[in-house]
Amino acid sequence: MMTIDGKQVAEKVLAECAEEIKALAAAGVTPGLAVVLVGEDPASQVYVSSKVKKCGEMGLHSRKIVLAADATQEELMAVVRELNADPAIHGILVQSPPPPHIDEDAVVRAIDPRKDVDGFHPENVAKLVLEDPSGFVPCTPAGCMRLIAESGISTVGAEAVVVGRSMIVGKPMAHLLVAKGSDATVTIAHSRTRDLAAVCRRADILIAAVGRPEMITADFVKDGAVVIDVGINRVKDESRKSGYRLTGDVAFEEVAPKCRAITPVPGGVGPMTIALLMSNTIKAAKLANG
Amino acid sequence: MMTIDGKQVAEKVLAECAEEIKALAAAGVTPGLAVVLVGEDPASQVYVSSKVKKCGEMGLHSRKIVLAADATQEELMAVVRELNADPAIHGILVQSPPPPHIDEDAVVRAIDPRKDVDGFHPENVAKLVLEDPSGFVPCTPAGCMRLIAESGISTVGAEAVVVGRSMIVGKPMAHLLVAKGSDATVTIAHSRTRDLAAVCRRADILIAAVGRPEMITADFVKDGAVVIDVGINRVKDESRKSGYRLTGDVAFEEVAPKCRAITPVPGGVGPMTIALLMSNTIKAAKLANG
Repeated sequence: MMTIDGKQVAEKVLAECAEEIKALAAAGVTPGLAVVLVGEDPASQVYVSSKVKKCGEMGLHSRKIVLAADATQEELMAVVRELNADPAIHGILVQSPPPPHIDEDAVVRAIDPRKDVDGFHPENVAKLVLEDPSGFVPCTPAGCMRLIAESGISTVGAEAVVVGRSMIVGKPMAHLLVAKGSDATVTIAHSRTRDLAAVCRRADILIAAVGRPEMITADFVKDGAVVIDVGINRVKDESRKSGYRLTGDVAFEEVAPKCRAITPVPGGVGPMTIALLMSNTIKAAKLANG
Repeated sequence: MMTIDGKQVAEKVLAECAEEIKALAAAGVTPGLAVVLVGEDPASQVYVSSKVKKCGEMGLHSRKIVLAADATQEELMAVVRELNADPAIHGILVQSPPPPHIDEDAVVRAIDPRKDVDGFHPENVAKLVLEDPSGFVPCTPAGCMRLIAESGISTVGAEAVVVGRSMIVGKPMAHLLVAKGSDATVTIAHSRTRDLAAVCRRADILIAAVGRPEMITADFVKDGAVVIDVGINRVKDESRKSGYRLTGDVAFEEVAPKCRAITPVPGGVGPMTIALLMSNTIKAAKLANG
């Protein structure tokens, strides 16, 4: 059994990014990322800060724009339009979720698709489905693909099961796995799936993206499977000073011994997401500079 | 075992269309479809003629535009632009495949997405993935969904296996089956799938869209499955005057006795495709008229 060290793989991705940043700098280009936050949700603040910090470490230009929790849709749209027009900004990310009075879909559609480093704009969604490599792939599923590659398993002809059908992880993950070149046989399972354990047990590669703590137990996993745990759930833990701990969708302790390879939580998919965000921002800077 | 009569179900869809056409006529609107053909491929000519003829039968306005086989990309694009601007035309279809010197993707992208009754424009591809009902669903998978509904089987929690990962059938089919409300557990299998027969045998609902005559034999099918055969293949048959016969991707004679329901070829999915094209054209006319 191998635990896939997401931090270490993320470092590899960031080292590749550093090479590209060097090449772009030689051409006089500094990739720039704008991160927009509406309101003061503490978790969102942490995410936004870590993204901006990573830009700094990598030598990327970044802008952090914080709007009040009661900012209007039009105020937010105006910010997006300004960033679309800013030549120093190549990637734009509006931290999700915004406050409930904001129409998030409309905001995503307002982002210039060539700056949509989250990969949520309809134009990039279509490119993913159409297997057009000029689009942006959402960071989390792109990170999962890299982790699978690092596990040493070939996806070609493998049985992959994706649990969860969200637009952010489940569906793009399924597309990446079934695309030409990846060539996995892909099953999308979800809350309405009958006998989910039996469906998951078919998997050579199992992707858990359900958001339910430790739901995937040992009886869901075939011996020798590769398990990628996308879940990040807070569960109460009185023994911790914070009063909680982070756990994935997979019951790691009992599942890990059965696996060929498995990602831990934290330290698995999480670090990859931010590394892929850097990578997408560099791609956007290259696109903008032909 | 029940043979699903595609012609009969198509008549039902067309009867629903007739009601909508009547309502639109009362509001002074006649839905209009333009079909563009480049070159003189005999099969394409047959398809185009049958679409135009169906429009006539239904009381829809139609235009048939035939360009020479050596028409340039720009000539074709100019036709599309003119049709985009024509208020009497609500649906535009460029018959596939165009001659090899034509960039088909560029043509599809040039069609106004609100007139893209084939559902191939990236904006409609994204809407399908995002489960946005305002988009156009490609006619063949939409027709398959209706046939499944008519078979009496519920898709909720059912195991569906789609064989084929094309943009025209396989992928949209998978999305329709996994979408909220359909709620099937969906597997996409393809040419690189290991032990395709075993994967197919899991299916409560099996969709064959591979384009290989009678490839799906009895050992691919679970007892009591619903089988939808999207294939239309010409195979040599010296006993026929034409020298060939049409056959599906499913070996009907040996598979049918195992099925709860199965579509024949011809007379299954085929008639549905044109009925759904009428339905999409009506939807486009409604969209254009608020």
